[in-house]
Amino acid sequence: MTVMGAGESAKYSCARLNDICEVVLDLDEKYNIERKKFGVVTPTDINYFKSVLSEDRVLTDESEVMPFNIDWIKNCRGQSQVVLKPKTVEEVSQILTHCNAKKLAVCPQGGNTGLVGGSVPVFDEIVLSLALMNKIISLDEISGSLVCEAGCILENLEQHAKEHNLIMPLDLGAKGTCHIGGVNNFEDILKLYRSAKLSLGEILSAFEMADAAAIDACVSSLKLTNPISSYPFYVLIETHGSNETHDSEKLGGFLEQEMASGLILDGTVSSDPNKIHAMWTLRESISTAVLLDGYVFKYDVSLPLKDYYKLVPKLKQRLGPTARRVCGYGHIGDGNIHINVSIPAYDKRTLEMLEPFIYEEVAKLDGSISAEHGIGFRKPHYIHYSKDATSLQLMKDIKQLMDPNGILNPYKVLPD
Amino acid sequence: MTVMGAGESAKYSCARLNDICEVVLDLDEKYNIERKKFGVVTPTDINYFKSVLSEDRVLTDESEVMPFNIDWIKNCRGQSQVVLKPKTVEEVSQILTHCNAKKLAVCPQGGNTGLVGGSVPVFDEIVLSLALMNKIISLDEISGSLVCEAGCILENLEQHAKEHNLIMPLDLGAKGTCHIGGVNNFEDILKLYRSAKLSLGEILSAFEMADAAAIDACVSSLKLTNPISSYPFYVLIETHGSNETHDSEKLGGFLEQEMASGLILDGTVSSDPNKIHAMWTLRESISTAVLLDGYVFKYDVSLPLKDYYKLVPKLKQRLGPTARRVCGYGHIGDGNIHINVSIPAYDKRTLEMLEPFIYEEVAKLDGSISAEHGIGFRKPHYIHYSKDATSLQLMKDIKQLMDPNGILNPYKVLPD
Repeated sequence: MTVMGAGESAKYSCARLNDICEVVLDLDEKYNIERKKFGVVTPTDINYFKSVLSEDRVLTDESEVMPFNIDWIKNCRGQSQVVLKPKTVEEVSQILTHCNAKKLAVCPQGGNTGLVGGSVPVFDEIVLSLALMNKIISLDEISGSLVCEAGCILENLEQHAKEHNLIMPLDLGAKGTCHIGGVNNFEDILKLYRSAKLSLGEILSAFEMADAAAIDACVSSLKLTNPISSYPFYVLIETHGSNETHDSEKLGGFLEQEMASGLILDGTVSSDPNKIHAMWTLRESISTAVLLDGYVFKYDVSLPLKDYYKLVPKLKQRLGPTARRVCGYGHIGDGNIHINVSIPAYDKRTLEMLEPFIYEEVAKLDGSISAEHGIGFRKPHYIHYSKDATSLQLMKDIKQLMDPNGILNPYKVLPD
Repeated sequence: MTVMGAGESAKYSCARLNDICEVVLDLDEKYNIERKKFGVVTPTDINYFKSVLSEDRVLTDESEVMPFNIDWIKNCRGQSQVVLKPKTVEEVSQILTHCNAKKLAVCPQGGNTGLVGGSVPVFDEIVLSLALMNKIISLDEISGSLVCEAGCILENLEQHAKEHNLIMPLDLGAKGTCHIGGVNNFEDILKLYRSAKLSLGEILSAFEMADAAAIDACVSSLKLTNPISSYPFYVLIETHGSNETHDSEKLGGFLEQEMASGLILDGTVSSDPNKIHAMWTLRESISTAVLLDGYVFKYDVSLPLKDYYKLVPKLKQRLGPTARRVCGYGHIGDGNIHINVSIPAYDKRTLEMLEPFIYEEVAKLDGSISAEHGIGFRKPHYIHYSKDATSLQLMKDIKQLMDPNGILNPYKVLPD
C-alpha cells in the first residue's frame, strides 16, 4: 500500500469492484482528486492514540484495517493505515483535539453500509470507527423514546425494544399484513396509492413498487418465486395496526374494491410472518439480483409522484441494446425510486451516456439527485443539480465553521 | 412615540400588560437592554421601500403600525415606525439588501401569535410582515404534500386541503372520537397513557391532561360546563382513524377495560362534532380562563414523563398563599406541560420567587425551558439552563454567518 506524503500531489484511484477478492486499482477509472495538504500519521501519533484508547482499539495491521477501507458494495477503496475505536465521547474528543492540532484528516465510520462512498477514506485519513459506541443510554417506556450512542445497530435496538414490549418504527412488525399485487401501468399505481391512503389511512406502513424487469431479476437470477402471474408493475402493500381483526377487515375491503375496479389485476395477501417475510425478500432482493447481470449503475433519486417512473423508459430508449436491464423500484410514499442499469461489464461510454444526463433530467423534473443514500464521495460534482450556488456556499460556510481545519471526512459531499 | 438615535444608549421598556387599551410603559418593570448601534430609518429609506413595494404596502401611520408593535398577549411593546408588507421573495430580497447596506435592523413578523416576545420589535426595528406572502404554491394530491409561502394561515390551508378531500395534520378531523375522563393521581395518568398507546396505537391523535385547578378556572371564571364530576386530574383522549366503526370499537374496548381497572373513574365519550368541539373548548379555554385571575406567569416547559407533573406541587408549596392559582395542563405525548401561576396583580417579588427557580428545577430534571413556544425576547437569559456554552457559541456563530450585520430580529433568542 502506497503511503502518500502531505506535499505530494498523488492521484486517487477509486476502483469500481464487484468482488472484494479482486481488489485492483484500475487507473483508467480513477477519479482525479488530489490529496489535500493534511499531516501524515507518525509513530508518535500512534503512541498517543494508544495512550488514549487501549492498545487493542488502535488497529494498524494491514489485514485488520482493510475492511474499513472498502465499502460494502465494494465500490470505493481508501488507503488508511489506522483505525481508532473509541468507546466514549471523551475519547473521541481527545482524538479530534490531537488530529486538529496535527492537521490529520479523519474519516468517521459507522456500519460502513453507505452506497455513495461516504463512509470509507479516500486517501490515508484515519478511520474513526464508532462500532464500539454502541450503548443504549435510556429507554423511556412511557413515551417510547430511546436514546443510544451513534454506533448502535438496528438489530440490537429492535431486540432491546422487544424486551420492553415496544418496537422500533423501522421494524417489520409481527402484526403486519402484507399484499403483493400486479397492475397494468404506472398511472394505475398512482390511483391505487391514493385509494390505499384513503382506505387504509393510518395503518398503511409500506407501499412499494417494482417493475417487471426488477422482479424478473429476482426470478431468473436468484430463482425466487413470484407469487402471482407476470405483470408490467407490482406493488407491495403492508399494513401495521394495533388490532389484527380491524386491519384484515380494512385491507380485505380495499383489495376487494380495487380488484373489482380493475386497478389490481391479481394479488396475494397474507398475515403469516413467514409468507410476509417471503414477500419482502422478493422486494429486498432486487438490488442483489441485478448485480448478477454484470456491472450495475445504481441511481437513487426522488421525483414528484406524477413523474416518478418517467426516467426508466427514457433511459431504456437512450441506451437501447447497450443495457442488459433498466429497471425501477422503490418507495412510492417517499417519492424515492431506485433506477438500476446493468451492462455485462463496466464500460466508461455507458457511464457517459448516463451521467450527467440522468441528473439533468431529475433537475428538470424538480427532483433530488440523492433521495435516501446521500451525496458522499460519489456525487459532490452533481449536487448543483439539486442545490443552488447560495445554498452550497452556505453549507460550505457552516462546515468550515464547525470544522475549521477541514479534517473531518474531506473530499465528500461538498464540491471544492 | 420616542425616536431613538443610533448612538443613544436608550433603555427599552417592555410592559407586562393584559389590556391593549392600557398601554403604559412601566419603568419599574423595564428590561435593561441597550439599543444596538443600528442605523435609523430616514425619509430616503421610506421612499426606497415605496419604490420597491407599492405605496400602500409601506405603513408609517402610528395607528396602523401600532398592532405590529404589540404581541397578542399584550406582553411586549416595540417602538417600530415602519411596517413593510412584501408579496414576493424578490421584494424581500431587495428590502434586506437595502437594510444590510444601511445597517437597519429588521423584525420579521408572521401571525404575531408568539408567547415569548419573539415576533414584535424591541426598539425601532423595521417590521417585515409576511402577512401578504400567503400564496399556496402547490398541493400534490397523490402524495399529500402542500407547499405554501411563509405567511399562510392554518385556517386557509385547512380550507384548501378540504377542497381536495385532504386534511391538514393539525386539523381536528370530522371522523375523530373524543373522550374526557377523571382519574385520581398523576401516576394513574401515566399508566393510562401507556395503556392508550397499546390499545389505540395508530389512531390515538391526542392525549391531553389538565389538573383540577386548571379545569376549575374554566368552570368558575368562564362558566363552562365540566361534563363529568370533580377529580384531581382530567384527561382528554382523541382518536382519529380512517374507519369510524373500528375506531369506536377500539376506544370503547379501551374505556371499558380502564374503567374496570379503576384508572378511569368517570368519563364521557362522543363522536358528535359539536360535543367534541365542546370538550376541546374546555381544554383550550384554560389559558384564557386563568388570565381572569389577575396577572399570570406562564411557563411552557418539557419534562421527562415520569417527572412531568413534579413542578406544580413544588411551586404551590413554594408560593403558598401568594398564588391565587398554580395549575398544570398540557400534551402528555410531547412531554410538554404548561404551568400557570396567577396572582391578583403583577408583583416583582413573585417573579423573583419563580425565576430562575423554575428553570433551575427544569434543568435538574433534564427538561427544556421552552417546549413549544421558543425563546424569543423573554428567555435568552435562561437558555443556558437547557443548552451548554459550546452549543450556544455554535448557534451564535451560525447566526453570525447568515446575518453578518446582526440586523435580523436582534435582542432575541441568543444572549449577548
